[in-house]
Order: sequence, then C-alpha cells, then structure tokens
Amino acid sequence: MRYLRYGEIGAEKPGLLDGEGRIRDLSGVIGDLSGKVLGALPQPDPESLPLVEGSPRIGVPVAGIGKLVAIGLNYSDHAAEAGMAEPSEPIVFMKATSCISGPYDPVYLPRGALKGDWEVELGIVIGREAKYVSEQDALDYVAGYTIVNDVSERAFQIERGGNWTKGKSCDTFGPIGPWLVSADEVGDPQSLALELDLNGERAQTGSSAKMIFSVRQIVSYLSQMMRLEPGDVIATGTPPGVGMGMTPPRYLREGDVMDLRIERLGHQRQEVRQD
Amino acid sequence: MRYLRYGEIGAEKPGLLDGEGRIRDLSGVIGDLSGKVLGALPQPDPESLPLVEGSPRIGVPVAGIGKLVAIGLNYSDHAAEAGMAEPSEPIVFMKATSCISGPYDPVYLPRGALKGDWEVELGIVIGREAKYVSEQDALDYVAGYTIVNDVSERAFQIERGGNWTKGKSCDTFGPIGPWLVSADEVGDPQSLALELDLNGERAQTGSSAKMIFSVRQIVSYLSQMMRLEPGDVIATGTPPGVGMGMTPPRYLREGDVMDLRIERLGHQRQEVRQD
Repeated sequence: MRYLRYGEIGAEKPGLLDGEGRIRDLSGVIGDLSGKVLGALPQPDPESLPLVEGSPRIGVPVAGIGKLVAIGLNYSDHAAEAGMAEPSEPIVFMKATSCISGPYDPVYLPRGALKGDWEVELGIVIGREAKYVSEQDALDYVAGYTIVNDVSERAFQIERGGNWTKGKSCDTFGPIGPWLVSADEVGDPQSLALELDLNGERAQTGSSAKMIFSVRQIVSYLSQMMRLEPGDVIATGTPPGVGMGMTPPRYLREGDVMDLRIERLGHQRQEVRQD
Repeated sequence: MRYLRYGEIGAEKPGLLDGEGRIRDLSGVIGDLSGKVLGALPQPDPESLPLVEGSPRIGVPVAGIGKLVAIGLNYSDHAAEAGMAEPSEPIVFMKATSCISGPYDPVYLPRGALKGDWEVELGIVIGREAKYVSEQDALDYVAGYTIVNDVSERAFQIERGGNWTKGKSCDTFGPIGPWLVSADEVGDPQSLALELDLNGERAQTGSSAKMIFSVRQIVSYLSQMMRLEPGDVIATGTPPGVGMGMTPPRYLREGDVMDLRIERLGHQRQEVRQD
C-alpha cells in the first residue's frame, strides 16, 4: 500500500492511493498516520474509501516523527566524491525534527547560507520499537520506506566547528514523502534506483545496491545505541552527484528546482527560496 | 515559580512547588507542561491548588520535548581537561529525544558500553518560537531553566566514527529536571553554581559564569540555523570534572550514584545500571 497525508500544513489527513493513483480518504479508518498505527497499518479495500477530490497539498506521510536519524557517506562512490574515506562503521548524525517539511514544499536557504546542497536518500520508517535487534530480524521493525531530501548547508556543516547538525537541521531541510510505501510493496530495499535532477538536469544517479551499510545493518546498528520508535525516520545516505562534489562546486540558489525520484517510492519536487 | 511533573512514566501530571516545597496539583489549571503553555506559564496562588500527598515519582518537567540540542566544550576549563581547543563558535550536537528520562530514574549503560560518563549542565527551556533572534532579545524566548545530565558513552562518542550522537543518545542518557524554574525566579543564568558528586564524592564543580558562550549567545546562535520551538531544551555544556578527564579516567559502573545540583534549580540523583 502507498499511504500519504494530504491537506494544509498542520491539518493533514491520512489517505492512501488506489489502483489508479487517486487519493482515498483514510480518516474514517485511522486518526492519523502516526507511530501508533505503523506497527499494523490498515489495509482496507481502497475502493471502499471516499475519493478525495481536487489536488490537495501532499504533506509528510508520517505524523509526529520522533527522531530523524541520518547516515553519512553510505555510498562508496559518494564517499569518493566527498574526498572522504569509506567509513568502517556507520556515520550517524541527527537532523532536528523541526526541519521536516512536505515533499513539494519550498526549501528555504537560511540567512547567511552560501553552500546549500541536495541529497536524495532512501528513508526507512520504523514500525515497531527496536532495541538490540539483530541484522537478521531488523527488517521486521520497518513499516515501510519513503524519500528524504537530506538538504545540507556545507559551510554550516563542515566549516563552522563540531558536528554536522548545524548544516543539516535548518528549517525545511528535511522534505519527506510523498508516500509511506509499505515494506511488502517495496520488496528488497537494496535494489532501488535513486535520482535527483537540478533544474531538469540529472545531478544524482544511484542504486541502493551500492550502500556500504544495508538497511538491515543500519537498523540493527542504531538499535544497539538507542531505541528506535514507531514513526522514527532514518535517512540512509546519498549516492554521488551532490553539488559539493562538482568541479567547480554548484550550490543551491534561489529559484532552483530539485526533482527527486526513488523507484517505487514516487517523486518529490522543491523550489529553492532565500529566507 | 518552580514547575514540575509528577507521577508514573507516561502518566505524569503538572504541578508546582508551594512556599514550603510541597507539590501542588496544577492539572486543574493546565493540561500539561508542554510547549503550548510555556510562553505564558500560569501563576496561580500555590495555596489555592490541591496539595499532592505522598512522594510521587518526579518526571521530566516538560512534556513533549521536540528537540534536545547540546553545546559541546562550552566551559574553558572543561575544554582544557578534554584536551581540546576552546571553540571559536558553539559546538552543536543533538541528543535523541528518546534518551530523555526523569531526574531520579536509573541511568542504563547500554550493552557494550565501556566508557559511561557524566556531565552536569544548565538546561535552557524555550518558551516562544525563536528564529533569527538577536543576542539582545534572546532571553525573551526562554521560559526557564532546568538541570540536564548529558550522560555520554565516550567510546561510542569519539572512537566509533563520525558525529557525537552515537555516544549521547542512548536510552536514559538524558535525565532532565526536577523542576522547570521560571526565568524570572532564576535571574542571571550566568551566575549559577553547578556540581556533581559521584558516590558522594565531588567530581564536578563549576559556575555558569565560566561559559565560553552565554545563554544569550547560544539561543541567538542556534536560532540563525534552526527555529527553536516552545518545549525545546538546550544543554549548555559542562564544567570540569568528567570521568574522561581524570587520571586515570574513571567511567561509570553498575551501582554508581550521581548527584547533580545547580543553584536555584534543585537536585538530581541517578543510580547506574547495566542494560
């Protein structure tokens, strides 16, 4: 199933897509697509649900995301483009949850930002509390997958001291969606094509087959250090083609448009604005 | 006023202390001490509120903390003990909100932890949304202050690659409380004595006067990068005396007891357990 949330910011309702890609209203079945329901997502016959008219805004497909964990340098070819060694264990950082925004909402460069950049990433949505889980069992804790644009400000991230959080947590730097696609519908998470276009030209092309640490490994690894809760989202790293890796580097400017696609997970588009 | 939340985990009720330090039930006045009410905390006559009988568990004084931001190496003498240069701008990292626990709840060392450590810190509780605020205005966005024990696992934090999050986000590594003391009652946040005893012996002694970056500077600085929301908590760094800085280093072991005190903000105590 492909679940989503639609409506204005702060007033989204739960929905799902029917066989023809139309939105059906799920609010008669569940209150919201929050952590509480992710362990046992409802699977009603879409045709039995009210059809949603018009073209509402698409919101973040999970309500009340408790933490947004991210893995750095998780594609060997991206590590090479960043000029950094392939990590021996996952690099973990956090994006503030206040950065989360809808998949078609604008991305705002904060005041003083000079090096805005893009990162298409496979997002894991946790469905059940995970603590000390084995790699073998790890996928049992995954409700599904979505797209995350791990928008970054490279000067804040790298040149201003300390951890990466500063350049990863700016408001609107976490577009998530459009859909939460249930794990059964995605199948093998390690065989998905990812791409990102900047102003209609291909920038990033990759496959989740190239991850250094797989979804299984990431979920198991993180769960040794912190419990993962239903509704948590993990961004699993980005393939090559970010602006920082170009010669010369190409950073985001007002008016730029990013189009992101991951196989089976749909499409995002953000226009860049200057705050 | 000194606000608090009391009761079993997940079922806390809001309260405040009366002039004799007894808990009064605030649940008839507000639903909870969540971000929503922090911009205009109620100030009823404590004597008009029902007295809470017995000695209930004291919980985290703020419900639904959206993010727990932390500042690293913010005391010049702690930076020296850690063998690190004094930072030229604030070092920012995040603790997962799933690490937050009550001020008297046990601290669990995760499996495989070898280097558990303590850090008494002044915690800022944000009362109003703050974005691009000046240092001059920054304190207007602060609801009050509390104690944070920024419990850390130094091997996870430093020896396992990447950002500090790994060693900062383990479950129970974020005791917060006992009280949210309103900013007016605290007065100058840069003149508070801090201390931490390990098993009854003094380990940390400090004063917030020794902060490299003040509360004003921290709130203003962070607000340039991410919006701070009511109920967010910022841990402002720790004074000298952590286990990592001792010769030889002294790390937490099962059965250790940490007692934390900050002037005007009360006391925390945690017993250490092995998970």
